[in-house]
Amino acid sequence: MSEPLGELEDLPQAYRDELKQAGVAPLWPMMRNVLPHGAPQPVTQAGYWNYDALRPLLLKAGELTPVEKAERRVLVLSDPGRGTGAMQATASIYLGMQLLLPGESAPAHRHTPSAVRIIVEGTGGYSVVDSERLPMEEGDLVLTPSGEWHDHGHDGNEPVVWLDALDLPVFVQLEGSYAVEGDLQPQRNRPDASEVEYKAAGLAPTRRPGHRARRFPMLRYPWTGTEAALRQMSAYGGDEIAELDYVNPETGEDILPTLGFTAMMFGAGQSQKPPLRSSSCAFHVIKGHGRTEVDGQVIDWGPKDTFTAPVFAAISHQAESEAFVIRIHDRPLQDKLGYYEERAR
Amino acid sequence: MSEPLGELEDLPQAYRDELKQAGVAPLWPMMRNVLPHGAPQPVTQAGYWNYDALRPLLLKAGELTPVEKAERRVLVLSDPGRGTGAMQATASIYLGMQLLLPGESAPAHRHTPSAVRIIVEGTGGYSVVDSERLPMEEGDLVLTPSGEWHDHGHDGNEPVVWLDALDLPVFVQLEGSYAVEGDLQPQRNRPDASEVEYKAAGLAPTRRPGHRARRFPMLRYPWTGTEAALRQMSAYGGDEIAELDYVNPETGEDILPTLGFTAMMFGAGQSQKPPLRSSSCAFHVIKGHGRTEVDGQVIDWGPKDTFTAPVFAAISHQAESEAFVIRIHDRPLQDKLGYYEERAR
Amino acid sequence: MSEPLGELEDLPQAYRDELKQAGVAPLWPMMRNVLPHGAPQPVTQAGYWNYDALRPLLLKAGELTPVEKAERRVLVLSDPGRGTGAMQATASIYLGMQLLLPGESAPAHRHTPSAVRIIVEGTGGYSVVDSERLPMEEGDLVLTPSGEWHDHGHDGNEPVVWLDALDLPVFVQLEGSYAVEGDLQPQRNRPDASEVEYKAAGLAPTRRPGHRARRFPMLRYPWTGTEAALRQMSAYGGDEIAELDYVNPETGEDILPTLGFTAMMFGAGQSQKPPLRSSSCAFHVIKGHGRTEVDGQVIDWGPKDTFTAPVFAAISHQAESEAFVIRIHDRPLQDKLGYYEERAR
Amino acid sequence: MSEPLGELEDLPQAYRDELKQAGVAPLWPMMRNVLPHGAPQPVTQAGYWNYDALRPLLLKAGELTPVEKAERRVLVLSDPGRGTGAMQATASIYLGMQLLLPGESAPAHRHTPSAVRIIVEGTGGYSVVDSERLPMEEGDLVLTPSGEWHDHGHDGNEPVVWLDALDLPVFVQLEGSYAVEGDLQPQRNRPDASEVEYKAAGLAPTRRPGHRARRFPMLRYPWTGTEAALRQMSAYGGDEIAELDYVNPETGEDILPTLGFTAMMFGAGQSQKPPLRSSSCAFHVIKGHGRTEVDGQVIDWGPKDTFTAPVFAAISHQAESEAFVIRIHDRPLQDKLGYYEERAR
Ligand SMILES: [Fe+2]
Ligand SMILES: [Fe+2]
Ligand SMILES: [Fe+2]
Ligand SMILES: [Fe+2]
Repeated sequence: MSEPLGELEDLPQAYRDELKQAGVAPLWPMMRNVLPHGAPQPVTQAGYWNYDALRPLLLKAGELTPVEKAERRVLVLSDPGRGTGAMQATASIYLGMQLLLPGESAPAHRHTPSAVRIIVEGTGGYSVVDSERLPMEEGDLVLTPSGEWHDHGHDGNEPVVWLDALDLPVFVQLEGSYAVEGDLQPQRNRPDASEVEYKAAGLAPTRRPGHRARRFPMLRYPWTGTEAALRQMSAYGGDEIAELDYVNPETGEDILPTLGFTAMMFGAGQSQKPPLRSSSCAFHVIKGHGRTEVDGQVIDWGPKDTFTAPVFAAISHQAESEAFVIRIHDRPLQDKLGYYEERAR
Repeated sequence: MSEPLGELEDLPQAYRDELKQAGVAPLWPMMRNVLPHGAPQPVTQAGYWNYDALRPLLLKAGELTPVEKAERRVLVLSDPGRGTGAMQATASIYLGMQLLLPGESAPAHRHTPSAVRIIVEGTGGYSVVDSERLPMEEGDLVLTPSGEWHDHGHDGNEPVVWLDALDLPVFVQLEGSYAVEGDLQPQRNRPDASEVEYKAAGLAPTRRPGHRARRFPMLRYPWTGTEAALRQMSAYGGDEIAELDYVNPETGEDILPTLGFTAMMFGAGQSQKPPLRSSSCAFHVIKGHGRTEVDGQVIDWGPKDTFTAPVFAAISHQAESEAFVIRIHDRPLQDKLGYYEERAR
Repeated sequence: MSEPLGELEDLPQAYRDELKQAGVAPLWPMMRNVLPHGAPQPVTQAGYWNYDALRPLLLKAGELTPVEKAERRVLVLSDPGRGTGAMQATASIYLGMQLLLPGESAPAHRHTPSAVRIIVEGTGGYSVVDSERLPMEEGDLVLTPSGEWHDHGHDGNEPVVWLDALDLPVFVQLEGSYAVEGDLQPQRNRPDASEVEYKAAGLAPTRRPGHRARRFPMLRYPWTGTEAALRQMSAYGGDEIAELDYVNPETGEDILPTLGFTAMMFGAGQSQKPPLRSSSCAFHVIKGHGRTEVDGQVIDWGPKDTFTAPVFAAISHQAESEAFVIRIHDRPLQDKLGYYEERAR
Repeated sequence: MSEPLGELEDLPQAYRDELKQAGVAPLWPMMRNVLPHGAPQPVTQAGYWNYDALRPLLLKAGELTPVEKAERRVLVLSDPGRGTGAMQATASIYLGMQLLLPGESAPAHRHTPSAVRIIVEGTGGYSVVDSERLPMEEGDLVLTPSGEWHDHGHDGNEPVVWLDALDLPVFVQLEGSYAVEGDLQPQRNRPDASEVEYKAAGLAPTRRPGHRARRFPMLRYPWTGTEAALRQMSAYGGDEIAELDYVNPETGEDILPTLGFTAMMFGAGQSQKPPLRSSSCAFHVIKGHGRTEVDGQVIDWGPKDTFTAPVFAAISHQAESEAFVIRIHDRPLQDKLGYYEERAR
């Protein structure tokens, strides 16, 4: 167990040439790289994006690049461990800040990766998913799941900004990522399902034989409902902060196949020290101020800021004021693969 | 196929005696009884119970029988097909009207059958299920599922009445019905889960590894939420009446293993002619007036009335005024057995 | 808790008349009947049917009643607790001994209840289920599940006898039992799925998108495979007898929605004292001799005999010789209803 | 839709510097890379490894590197698209040829990725998984699933070689891959579950309440059973080749969370032109000779050879002689992510 493994240099050059010729490579010199002892050794590093710094850059992108030349006008939040330009924030999570200006529209497409948008600022923006019109209000979660047509529009007067969270890195790595483009969709003239079919917990449209529920029946999770629910949890939660998972109301499953979303509420001064988790994650602040340590790195955060943590990071949150934060994570994927894990600190 | 089958009388008496001696009986004379052609031949008949008629009888039961001598002071709604005294309203559904007077309590027990209570009148009543205190307000559904301790109490000043719906007939027939008695339970000092954990559709307490959701996480479905959701459905439902199934918010499954509950809203003058269903069912009127035909029998109903229909009944509803009705049915059981069926009329 | 409940006679006759008039009945005088203390009080009693006694009666039925006058020429094993004539052996299990003579056929039908046939004697019999021809050899289990067309035929020279096990009582009680008749089916010219698609454990026809597995993909469980598997289990099972559940090879679920089947092998002299189970059950002896006590009643059994036990029966088996027995039980139904239970003795 | 998107060079250098400073990158210049039109653009290329060429290299590794210096003495089959040295054969599949010499043992460890070994040559090798001893015979599949302790040993006299198939690339990309080392395990003195508990299709150890089946109950799939089953399928399969999926006998699910295994049998001269699949795959030849085209590249294969194909490859097989091939693919993972797809050619 303790003896060091052989290295590539231990092998005769002629043999190494033969291996190369045959298209094979010895495992043992690479063994500890691909299977490190005891825990993964992530490349990913904690990242922090201050919204006040990001906003002018995003507005400038609006001046420099018309939406027609961008399709989606997004600044991608690059994992510091991989360097700026990386199309991912952690091993599995892509984050991007998207701008839509009044009167603009982002054309319809559908793709294998799934997205959730968290609305950051502005009113009048909307998404259309399979012809369902989804208003985008601050703090709302709006889903555009794998394979569903979606476009975006803007009826308001001020810039609309949202944070895109996608499982794009997983699909890119699996060589499964692609998109199909189409025309803007017609919009059904009625409110979205969160306002009609799924207006109350524990109620669902009556089941008819053969008519299966849509795979993603609820595409918008209005912030007003989430905040009210968190406040109620918090009132009866004792010392623990309030935490609610966003779920599919027809199945109780996570809202996307790979990514999970958890709404958190901190009372002023409240702190949380979660266990070490095998999931990587991102945090987006809806309201409030606080400080978070990620593997010793201190992050002071305020409204609309975003920050990330790699797998098994030691995370400690401390809220200054009452604060609402959404945690994005890949536990659903890890559950499906059977290896999600929490370790005591 | 068309030849009539042999009858018992076709067999020699000596042979019939031998069969009896051996503890066996020929199937063929009974074949069409147990396997009728094309559709079941239910014993169950449509029933109707006017609340105004029932109420004084129930109050008199309160005078005649102290709760200590009754445990549960209930008048059972007997299927007319089986005759008064039958402990069932349809083949699978038991219905009883229960009275609790101010200051009374019904002692704790738990049993294999499951119950849902629909609150008919009165305020101040409550149920305690596994130490969770569940207020009972008009129109609320309150669950006491299989195996969970439950008792009832009353802090108010007027009689409290509720309709009990149980799958008791199934358990009695399966020789699986029994109860265990216990003491009144302590009550946790906080609102029930419908007020805390399941306050909004699409949100659930954050999942922790190893901590599984309770099998019946939501034990109370407040009427206020149901009515609001129905109104919203109705506003966008076009010609169809609004219908919502009560579901487990953690799984989307029906709220009981055998019985399903569906809340219906009729606009004034709206009608519904559902397909013929293999499920038997009961209807309880929360508010409003209307007329329903069940296999040709006309039932004029008003607030707090209850009526039933056997399997494959031809049912036509016609609301006079805006009306809210809860349908109780055994589709969940039939789904599990794999034979639930709807037929066009 | 200990005070006796009120009785019907405690109520004034006038009030009782009013209740009857209103179609309602007080619960409390019936309370302990429908919800007895601590455990069910089954009507079902243990039964025992000696095959040597049954066989001549069955053959005489063959002489007295042509198959055209019987459709299915069956002697039903009536629960002694309900008396001869009862179309059930326990609360949930129907058992019948069926005879098919050379050259006869039993016409096609399909029905809501499901059946498993255990072949008792004879060769040349076969069932056709949805056009799949299923040979019937001694000890085989042959399924005719809910809703699937089935007929029976006989190409051999000696009488064929099998034991039918159905969930008929459940469907009759639920008023869900009915049949549809049809013509004899064409037979696909190839062996059944147990000889082709499901020839080895852990292998299944390759999955194609959209092509779902049949709900009941394996309709015949050949005895030769079962005996070989039991012998292997027994060789490595230590003191415990070998017990294998019959399962759906595509899902691992029980082979019928309500009934489960377990093959048991006893070494000579081996005994078993299972826990008290909430399921009722029947035992059919494939080979061997032994003695079983059911709630104190002693049953000495030999090849092809059948015996039963009610819910929560105290059962003790003692094999004289090496013995193979099939246990039929309703645990699958009780699992679905959520109340299956085992108690230590 | 058709207008070309803006490029990085279209943006002023000062702005690009600011973006870099802020840790963000514009999406649109990268948009078509991460979301190509219509289908993925895989880096992976078809690979082919002739066993006759590989074998001497593997034996030489045995001479050059003692197992103590290698832990696992494996030559990794590197995707030609990524170049020799790549620790993966496709986007999701790792393949390695492993050598164990007589008397050697590979020490115990467990890790998050899962493996299946397909035995290529030699007798006397065995794996121990959670103390269950699994003999390794030619053509057998032996599982060492995620999280289960495993070591390997060799009681024979000739080299033993097997092909390792792992989902390692997925775990590496997710930063979830790690291992824990331990001592050689004790071995239970009885045959593995394929010889005892899962000896026949449609039978499983009797279910006891609370005792859940192991997540991976069957760890060895003996080739003899697979070949016999394929021959039977083939005899009744008509023009289609015989294809059987390896499944968990307790659930019918694929044998690993991410990877699927399908055994294929070609009659002499038989061909197959499967649809374009979104899964990537590898083929390992158990017996026989044939020719396969992958995206126009011709591969002539014989016994023990291995070859691969990227996602959506156009694959055409033509067997010269009767041939048995195992297909390894990532459909289970794609099913879980909800995007597995087949396209007509
Ligand atoms: Fe998109
Ligand atoms: Fe009760
Ligand atoms: Fe039948
Ligand atoms: Fe390993």
